[in-house]
Amino acid sequence: MLDFTCDYNNGAHPSVLQRLIDTNGLISGTYGFDEFSESAADKIRAAVEDPDAAVYFIAGGTQTNMTVISSCLKSYEGVVCADTGHINCHESGAVEYTGHKIIRLPSHAGKVDAGELEDLLSSFYADQSHEHMVFPGMLYISYPTEYGTIYSKTELQALRGVCVKYGMKLFCDGARLGYGLCSDGADITLPELHGLCDVMYIGGTKCGALCGEAVVFQRGAVPDHFVTLIKQRGAMLAKGRLIGVQFDALFEDGLYFRIANQAIRRANELRALLDAKGYSQFVGSPSNQIFVVLDDETVKRLSENVKFEIWEKPDKDRTVVRFVTSWSTTPEQIAELGRLL
Amino acid sequence: MLDFTCDYNNGAHPSVLQRLIDTNGLISGTYGFDEFSESAADKIRAAVEDPDAAVYFIAGGTQTNMTVISSCLKSYEGVVCADTGHINCHESGAVEYTGHKIIRLPSHAGKVDAGELEDLLSSFYADQSHEHMVFPGMLYISYPTEYGTIYSKTELQALRGVCVKYGMKLFCDGARLGYGLCSDGADITLPELHGLCDVMYIGGTKCGALCGEAVVFQRGAVPDHFVTLIKQRGAMLAKGRLIGVQFDALFEDGLYFRIANQAIRRANELRALLDAKGYSQFVGSPSNQIFVVLDDETVKRLSENVKFEIWEKPDKDRTVVRFVTSWSTTPEQIAELGRLL
Amino acid sequence: MLDFTCDYNNGAHPSVLQRLIDTNGLISGTYGFDEFSESAADKIRAAVEDPDAAVYFIAGGTQTNMTVISSCLKSYEGVVCADTGHINCHESGAVEYTGHKIIRLPSHAGKVDAGELEDLLSSFYADQSHEHMVFPGMLYISYPTEYGTIYSKTELQALRGVCVKYGMKLFCDGARLGYGLCSDGADITLPELHGLCDVMYIGGTKCGALCGEAVVFQRGAVPDHFVTLIKQRGAMLAKGRLIGVQFDALFEDGLYFRIANQAIRRANELRALLDAKGYSQFVGSPSNQIFVVLDDETVKRLSENVKFEIWEKPDKDRTVVRFVTSWSTTPEQIAELGRLL
Amino acid sequence: MLDFTCDYNNGAHPSVLQRLIDTNGLISGTYGFDEFSESAADKIRAAVEDPDAAVYFIAGGTQTNMTVISSCLKSYEGVVCADTGHINCHESGAVEYTGHKIIRLPSHAGKVDAGELEDLLSSFYADQSHEHMVFPGMLYISYPTEYGTIYSKTELQALRGVCVKYGMKLFCDGARLGYGLCSDGADITLPELHGLCDVMYIGGTKCGALCGEAVVFQRGAVPDHFVTLIKQRGAMLAKGRLIGVQFDALFEDGLYFRIANQAIRRANELRALLDAKGYSQFVGSPSNQIFVVLDDETVKRLSENVKFEIWEKPDKDRTVVRFVTSWSTTPEQIAELGRLL
Repeated sequence: MLDFTCDYNNGAHPSVLQRLIDTNGLISGTYGFDEFSESAADKIRAAVEDPDAAVYFIAGGTQTNMTVISSCLKSYEGVVCADTGHINCHESGAVEYTGHKIIRLPSHAGKVDAGELEDLLSSFYADQSHEHMVFPGMLYISYPTEYGTIYSKTELQALRGVCVKYGMKLFCDGARLGYGLCSDGADITLPELHGLCDVMYIGGTKCGALCGEAVVFQRGAVPDHFVTLIKQRGAMLAKGRLIGVQFDALFEDGLYFRIANQAIRRANELRALLDAKGYSQFVGSPSNQIFVVLDDETVKRLSENVKFEIWEKPDKDRTVVRFVTSWSTTPEQIAELGRLL
Repeated sequence: MLDFTCDYNNGAHPSVLQRLIDTNGLISGTYGFDEFSESAADKIRAAVEDPDAAVYFIAGGTQTNMTVISSCLKSYEGVVCADTGHINCHESGAVEYTGHKIIRLPSHAGKVDAGELEDLLSSFYADQSHEHMVFPGMLYISYPTEYGTIYSKTELQALRGVCVKYGMKLFCDGARLGYGLCSDGADITLPELHGLCDVMYIGGTKCGALCGEAVVFQRGAVPDHFVTLIKQRGAMLAKGRLIGVQFDALFEDGLYFRIANQAIRRANELRALLDAKGYSQFVGSPSNQIFVVLDDETVKRLSENVKFEIWEKPDKDRTVVRFVTSWSTTPEQIAELGRLL
Repeated sequence: MLDFTCDYNNGAHPSVLQRLIDTNGLISGTYGFDEFSESAADKIRAAVEDPDAAVYFIAGGTQTNMTVISSCLKSYEGVVCADTGHINCHESGAVEYTGHKIIRLPSHAGKVDAGELEDLLSSFYADQSHEHMVFPGMLYISYPTEYGTIYSKTELQALRGVCVKYGMKLFCDGARLGYGLCSDGADITLPELHGLCDVMYIGGTKCGALCGEAVVFQRGAVPDHFVTLIKQRGAMLAKGRLIGVQFDALFEDGLYFRIANQAIRRANELRALLDAKGYSQFVGSPSNQIFVVLDDETVKRLSENVKFEIWEKPDKDRTVVRFVTSWSTTPEQIAELGRLL
Repeated sequence: MLDFTCDYNNGAHPSVLQRLIDTNGLISGTYGFDEFSESAADKIRAAVEDPDAAVYFIAGGTQTNMTVISSCLKSYEGVVCADTGHINCHESGAVEYTGHKIIRLPSHAGKVDAGELEDLLSSFYADQSHEHMVFPGMLYISYPTEYGTIYSKTELQALRGVCVKYGMKLFCDGARLGYGLCSDGADITLPELHGLCDVMYIGGTKCGALCGEAVVFQRGAVPDHFVTLIKQRGAMLAKGRLIGVQFDALFEDGLYFRIANQAIRRANELRALLDAKGYSQFVGSPSNQIFVVLDDETVKRLSENVKFEIWEKPDKDRTVVRFVTSWSTTPEQIAELGRLL
């Protein structure tokens, strides 16, 4: 059975696994204070071209989002995000559980618009009752978005500009960061993205690791006693090295980008096949998530041999489905899916 | 350099690692709904001799404690524990962060006393102002305790009795459960412990895994929508299989207890050496943590060749230090420590 | 200077004040357990025609909303409300501060639509990922709404039907309940409204009291240990009698409705004047809040002699303003405003 | 029936009530932004002799404590207080509900000791694991304490010194502040106390008002957007003037201290009577709460004619009971109690 459900249905990339094997017998520091985590952080600092960046490792994406957001916000602040943002839709209210409101902006294929953000903020501060409202303290974006789309550098600079103007922090959820940066048409580099965000995370779980996300703060943007805040939210692993070792492998010799690039090649092959067969994409996404509109007959037929996610029903007879590639997707799997389409 | 700092400064037990290697290439379900996690849960149900037990896997101990406690308590309830309880001392206020008070009982070498618990509860309900107080909704114990001590079956039955009488849940933190159950003098079995606790967790991180704890509820004790509650607290791994695979290995052919037993043998050897050399134990612990009183000179001397944790200073010239063994401790390491003592 | 800003810029209704004077010298029970609060609760039970109703008094509206909502919801649940709901807009994130998400429905002049609620719920439960989302546990409505509009009995029955079908609680914020029930066209009585809502509150602050709201639960709908939950949220007054005394006066001989009715007569007079002068209402509201579209010149001119609230700007040259009447508004004030318009 | 249960079983002081009557017909600003609240704040600034002090009014004590504490603390911080502190014992876990731990110090008749605080703090920062613990961010004291005792100026200066040394804020719960400052032996003035505390509150509810506490911050100590934080915790009254009016009366011509002084005179008379009859005080308190040890026979006999609170049982045959005087206690009531004793 082919499985295009998601990019976290697999194990670790072989090189990541090998590093776990190689280091398994060693004794190390704990709670993320170990030589492997330090080495990984160094490599990430090099990758973002910022020797002052602060790097922390957290096991999963939702945990990272809730930890970063609740640690950066003041009690009177909320986080702004697109209607479709992962924190707003599929994290079981984890952000609200920490006491903070999510302030919604319209989603444009997963993205927020700088002009609409500016309108929200200027209206907020013009409102004579705004002390009775929730202050917008942070903008949450995802790169790539939940719809696989990516912001242009210009769009990101515009968002950054509005954030700076209104004293908001900018946080980028990079659960699939590698896949976004390697997409055709991506015009921003990792160092540039880091330069625009107060804090972002580089996703490991979906990009070659068994678990783990690397949180990267700009100098001076780390909340006081962030280690304690991580612990308080239950987000600290006793054997923190588990994540450090994996990122140390991922950021050696460009592995992270090499394997992300590979997944994008597979996605592009699939997009070409879908185009050739006349299937229309629901959202024009350049990254590793492809949303296609299928008639229900096709959905039923395909389901016998392929796993994929049902997204939504645009009308009575058709369904939007999602195919996801990853570093572990092979050309053969794409070809076989092509035959089945 | 010898390292007796803790039982989580190492990698995975070789059999656990091998299982990760063997399964790495397979595609699986996600979020803990995968064949490995199901197999591991089945083995744990067999080990606790309860086919109705509900089993969930969570990455770390603090996260498990906060998730279980906050999910089981009503808003008006707090959790009772020993002064020395891990949740009260070394989890950065994670329980309070979820909105619940920790109600303290005196610690007797890490243990709580059923009589004192009964006094607390009868006083509480006799107090005419108790609606202005926090209701004791759960008892948290650790087995073994933070001081390496263990409860007898009789003591646990007495605690259970008080909990039942006052409608409280009983939760056992088993971060080092294997080491406790394999201690000399332990008179309770895993199925018996499960039978006495509404919920407990079987620690993996400190007992052979890279990460992961197995939460085991008695039938009917699982909070509604516990999966959502796990997700909301950031405690759900996308690749939940990471923990499932490891517990599947740990609970195959008794590996979990075999390796815990080995650590206890090492600890016993160390205790014998310490006795022989006339060092006095601070707390008489039968499990894998040994607390010894050393004069400061000895501490200084030992520190040159051995890592261990400084616990507290009973007086000006002496220090309580902790030595911890684990499944990875070798007889040679014990012997070398013996020579250095 | 005329003041039509709001319905809480005044003192107490004279009869309410008189009762405070009459009872001032008496000694009583505390924390809401006093003869005045008991008498008031009895009168409210009579007014809702339900001897089993449970009645609690809380000082303010936001506090009541956060206390009721957070006490009724499970941790995995959120509260559904209109975009324009007070809890979503003007309570500084008080609901989220208690850990719960607000799930938004479109506002139709302040009201939610039963069909849209049904769609939300059926979609939610049909979504295969709904365990990763926030469960809709309660519907929050306001009567009258933040736009002064009122639901018909049929609309409320439809909402109730959907709530029952999906196991949701229905909560009605009645900060201005008297004004709503006395509006022309209102086709529901207080007992009927109580019969449709698991819990509602009868507003005192805006309807004749100095402070205080009466929370009314249907039998069996009170959260366990609600008194403790009130205390825990800081919402319990030591001299609870302060609110009891006032509601005891308000619910004697129909005072509450008599004075609300008077405010509606004033609002109707004002609506007639506005119509006569050709001003168009922004929202057709039958209760004590009137939203009018004025050109900016008129706003400026009026502001010299009248206080009112600026609501929003529908376009460059015009402004939506709000005039509010209350039990303390006199026919003379309306006439004077008429002259100034 | 005589009632010595507490100091909040009565109405308002006649002068306070009169001010409510006098201002009742006036229209005013809302949410605490009104002329009465401003006037009251001015008088309080004069009373604390600090024109830069920031003053806010909140309806009740628990609400004030939770609002001030949760607004001043960072997420990683907890509040230190005596075992017997009101926030630790009788507020239903309101502080923990906001996510913060209460760190306990031994109580010495309700007071904490500067030396013990210093030990706690120096141990905390010396502990190599302190990043895994809760940072002590604020000291909470009460003046007078829950046992009616009062700190000397020297003791308060010592506590202040430790707080400054370790970067902690000092917060004084003054629910009964007037009674404390007017006690025989009190050697600190209101301005001096204000000078030692980052924030304190001057209790109104127990000292002549129907409700209300005045929070007083030193210049620069107010949390950002404190108005929003008050609203978010449900602690803002729409008719904020209700509290402002009362404090405006209480702080006119020294009324607050005059009536507190009167209560202390009554308490002193009662203490003399108790001494004369040979009853021994449980705690030597100079303020308006008197704790006496009675044999159970006497308790039973007295209960037929007097209400008082049962505190605790020091042994099988005796009971500690509490008698409380207030501004409304008359010499006749004391004399009658004397006859009954």
